[in-house]
This record gives sequence, C-alpha cells and structure tokens, in this order.
Amino acid sequence: MPELRKDPVIGRWVIISIERSRRPRDSYELSEKDNKKTDPENCPFCAGNEEMTPPEILAVRNNNSLANTPGWDIRVVPNKFPALRVEGNLDKEGTGMFDKMNGIGAHEVIIETPKHEYGIQEHSYSSWNNVLEVYRARINDLKKDIRLKYILVFRNEGELAGASLDHPHSQLIATPIIPKRVQEELYGAQKYHNYKDRCVFCDIIREEIRQKERLVLENDFFVAFCPFAARFPFEIWILPKDHQADFENTPQEKMPYLAELMVKVQRKLNKALNKPHYNYILHTGPVRVPKKGYWESIDSDYHWHIEVMPKLSRVAGFEWGSGFYINSTSPEVSADFLRQLDV
Amino acid sequence: MPELRKDPVIGRWVIISIERSRRPRDSYELSEKDNKKTDPENCPFCAGNEEMTPPEILAVRNNNSLANTPGWDIRVVPNKFPALRVEGNLDKEGTGMFDKMNGIGAHEVIIETPKHEYGIQEHSYSSWNNVLEVYRARINDLKKDIRLKYILVFRNEGELAGASLDHPHSQLIATPIIPKRVQEELYGAQKYHNYKDRCVFCDIIREEIRQKERLVLENDFFVAFCPFAARFPFEIWILPKDHQADFENTPQEKMPYLAELMVKVQRKLNKALNKPHYNYILHTGPVRVPKKGYWESIDSDYHWHIEVMPKLSRVAGFEWGSGFYINSTSPEVSADFLRQLDV
Repeated sequence: MPELRKDPVIGRWVIISIERSRRPRDSYELSEKDNKKTDPENCPFCAGNEEMTPPEILAVRNNNSLANTPGWDIRVVPNKFPALRVEGNLDKEGTGMFDKMNGIGAHEVIIETPKHEYGIQEHSYSSWNNVLEVYRARINDLKKDIRLKYILVFRNEGELAGASLDHPHSQLIATPIIPKRVQEELYGAQKYHNYKDRCVFCDIIREEIRQKERLVLENDFFVAFCPFAARFPFEIWILPKDHQADFENTPQEKMPYLAELMVKVQRKLNKALNKPHYNYILHTGPVRVPKKGYWESIDSDYHWHIEVMPKLSRVAGFEWGSGFYINSTSPEVSADFLRQLDV
Repeated sequence: MPELRKDPVIGRWVIISIERSRRPRDSYELSEKDNKKTDPENCPFCAGNEEMTPPEILAVRNNNSLANTPGWDIRVVPNKFPALRVEGNLDKEGTGMFDKMNGIGAHEVIIETPKHEYGIQEHSYSSWNNVLEVYRARINDLKKDIRLKYILVFRNEGELAGASLDHPHSQLIATPIIPKRVQEELYGAQKYHNYKDRCVFCDIIREEIRQKERLVLENDFFVAFCPFAARFPFEIWILPKDHQADFENTPQEKMPYLAELMVKVQRKLNKALNKPHYNYILHTGPVRVPKKGYWESIDSDYHWHIEVMPKLSRVAGFEWGSGFYINSTSPEVSADFLRQLDV
C-alpha cells in the first residue's frame, strides 16, 4: 500500500510508493528506458492491446463492441502502477513526531484515442470535447467517494514532461488531501474575495482582456493568455470567462468552446515550438461534501482553470528548492508570437 | 533590466528576464545546446580562460598571482547572464491589478576549482571547506546591501538538474524578496515554535537520530538523513546538530565537519547512483536588518540546512502544477542503501 507522508515543517504531503521501492540501479535504469519511444505493437494503449491494461472503468464505444476489446474511441483504465489505491480504509496515524496516512485514492489513465500518433492537434473540436466529457464523467463518479478530497486531471506530453508512454493520454489522480498548490490558490482566492468581494480570477480575466498584450485566444466562453507572472516561456492559462468554481459543473453547452480553444492552443504551441513537451493541469475546486465552514465560500471565491506549462529546456534547476522561477521569455513576447500564428 | 512579478493569486514572485527574451526557436535551440559537454579549452571557468567571465569579485589565491589571471583555487564572478542585477534603485509599482518591481539583486558563480573535471568527491575535506568559507564570505558581503532580503546558494550538477556548464561550480542569487519555499519554512517553523516552544528542525534531528532508519551519516556537529516526507528518491538533508538559524553564523571551527559530511554524501551518492545529476540548495535565515516584529523570532525558530535533490528520472510530470510529489523509493530504502556504502 502506498503511503502519504506530511513534511513537518511546511505541511506538504508526499506519496511514497513503498511497495514499488526499487533498488537504486533499477530506478536509474528505468529513467533511461522511459525515454525510448514505445513501439505501437507493444503499446498498451493501442487498439488490439486492451489485455495489456487493467480492465476498463469507462469507454466511449460507438458500436456494439465488448468491454476490453477494440472498437472504442476513448478508454479509461486504472494506472497499472498506481500512485494511490482505491481499496481499504483511510487510516491516519503518527509515527514519532511525523504524520502519515495510507495511500487511498485513485490513479486512472484516460486514453484519448486508439491511434498511437494522434495528438490533441489532430482532434476535431467535437472529438476533443468527448475527451473533456470523459474527464467530467470520471470526476463526477469519483466525487461520490467521501474519502477523496481532490481530483486532479493532468496531461504529460513528451519525456521532458515526465511522460513514460507516447500514446496520447491524460491522467487523473484522486487524493484524500488537497494538493498544496491548489490549497494555496484556494486561500489566495479567498483572501482576495474577502477583501474585494470579487473573484481574483474574474479580475485577472478582465485585466488580460483589457491589457491585450498577453492574450492568446478567446471565444464566447473561454479565454487563453500567458499569465502576468508566468513561470515558463509560453506558459498558458485557459479559463472560463463566466465565474465557475468547478470544471465538472460548467454548463455542457459551453464545453465545445473549451474544446475548440484547447485544440487551437495545442496547434499554436506545436507550430511555434515544434511539438514541445509540456504538462497541463486542471485546477478545479476541491470535493466538498458536506459543505462546512471555510468550504462554503469556494463557489464564490474559486475559478477553475487549466495551466499549460511547456518544458522547453532544463532551466528548472534551483526552482525545485526555492519556489523561485526564472523565466527567460516574457509572457508578452510569448503571447505576441502565439497570437500571430494561424491555426 | 529584469523584472520581478507577483502572481496575484498565490503571491509567488517570478523573475522575468525581459531583455534576454528570445524568440521561441532560439530558446528551444539553446536548451538543446545546453546538453552538450563543454570543451575545457572553451570553458569560461577553466584556468587560463579568466577573460571569458566578467571580472572576479573574490578569489582564493595562494601565490602572488594577479586578479583575473591563473593561479587561483576558487574564483567568484558575476553570472554572465544574470537573472538579477545589482545596479539601480529598487522600484516597486503596480500595472493594472498586477504588482512588479525591477530585478535588483545579485547572481554570482562560485567556481570551486580551476580543474574542469574535479567534482566535490575529489576534494579533500579542507579544500571543500574553503569553498564553504567562500559561500560565507559572499553572503556576509551581500548582507550589507539593505535592498536584499534573501541570499540563496545552490548547486546544479548535470543537465537533468539544469546545469549549463559542466565545470564544477555553485551559484548564488540574492533577491529583494524571500523565496516562497523559504517563506513557507519560516512560517511553518514559527508556528511550530509558538506551539511547542522548540525548533521543529531540532525535533526532526532528534527524531531521525532516535529512529535511525533514515540516517545516512553523522559526525560531532552535523547530520545527514533522507527526510521522512522525501520528495525524491535519495533526497538528503544536511543540518547542523546545534540550533543555528543562519549558515554564515555557524562557528568557524564546526565548518570542517560540514565539509567532511558533504564530501562523504557526494561520494556515497556517486557510488550508489553512478554520478547522479542533482541540485542542492542552502536554506538559511533571511537577511534581517533592522530586526523587527516577526523577524525577531527567526533566530529561535529557524534552522539552516542543505537539501540535496538527485534528479534520477523525469517522473516529475504533474508535480510542477500541483505541489504533489510521488516518490518511488522510500527514504528508508534510500538511506539503508547509502549507509552501507564505504566512502
């Protein structure tokens, strides 16, 4: 069983995969292997290789094909090497002065397409929208598990971004605690709301649309811009223009607009940076059932968004230990370049 | 002039190198080039190539050699591509709803040896101690500049850790704000101290020495262990056993014990992991002149330390955006392996 451990100084939780603990050489060799391209014949995410993954949790199938056989468009499976596990009770305990809990949670893979080489940029807006609807379906299902406090959807593209398989896929990790960065955003947004009685993200959106210089794309319901304090060259945030705390509660009729923006952003990034490796991460409100105390204000304070973080170089040396970022390309230069590209 | 910008949601400051802003292709190509080994003949940090760096700030020379000529053991120079600059006044201003200040600070390189291939592991304890004393000399000098709030010493080894030159060197960045991670540690340590009237780091040291399973090395004055909530396989923290907030105020007679531990830790890591790429970062107390309010308690609350973070694989995908770490090798397994190695 994996274990969640808390840093006693800053309160950061870490997942320690005890049972998967490898001897150092193995571990190092794995990292070398990670960089090799997967051969489609041995790719567990390709159509025809369904038996190579754990049984599917959900699949979008347009014909009468059976579960765990070909014929699907999108497939959700548990991660074969999960960071967290669904089985068991959530036990919290101390060990000396330290705090830990067992690694209850979920770790799923959303295989976006049966085709090995079919990135976001190849999708039609409506087929990418189907992927987004699968995100929502999984979030809504996992929210029923009261042990879980947060459901994090993210996507690693390319080995610099930590992807171990190159078949297009997203991931979802549901945790019994709220990730530190999200917690910081919740507090920051709450503080701002208490002071100004406005959502900080709504204010940022208005400011970016007014200032224009960091704007990348917008449509009726969504906006994409390079944030003012971007950590990375070509970092892009995508937000709904109307206030909405939870991704999964966004009205369904607006979702195709998000799909359109995401596909276009991907095409622009690919054109600008020659298919860069990147991570994106969906920051949505935490699971909050039953609502109480502090949580009650999240609907008004918080605003879900997607952060796209290209990994253009390994400049990220000391950033790990300081929380300090050095960005060698200003968001204005990044946005200007991206705006000019036709996609 | 570089610019410091504040994220309006979580208050994180980022350094934006406006003038160095590159067009995307340049930027991407630079990252490829970064990975090439430097040829000693063209290495700006090798003896004989002193004219390839800006003029030296400090050098340890055992003979009568002139500044910026060969004959040195350790040499400190300004970074040729500084993230921050010393010249000018610290101007803070708002732009719309956003906050920024100009990039006042210092960015220095500590060239640890004139020899191109001479890592920490090759140093004698006393020659590595000379490097540590140079760290202290630079910190003490920069502390006189009242615009600076924090002085961060760090070391990137290998391209996975963001090093762009393979000649052994450390870096120092002095900033007009306290880095977020250090700020979090200061608050966490203060909270703990308010509650328990003890230093949290002192308690951790006692606990690690008592529990033993994460201990790597200790001597009379320093201890090295894999922390309970380690983020990375083989992450190691090194701390003074006696309470001390500031690295630069550690009694000089204890410093050779730190040098010994650092050299041994490096030798163990090299043996265990075949010269891994890593970052280490020195977390010391912030510059606090004049002392006031909150700052007064730092001497009792905070405890300086070094965090060594090997970069064994690119598993660090979604960690960037979540603050959540998944560590595939428990600190107990890491420490046990390291303890058994003779160095």
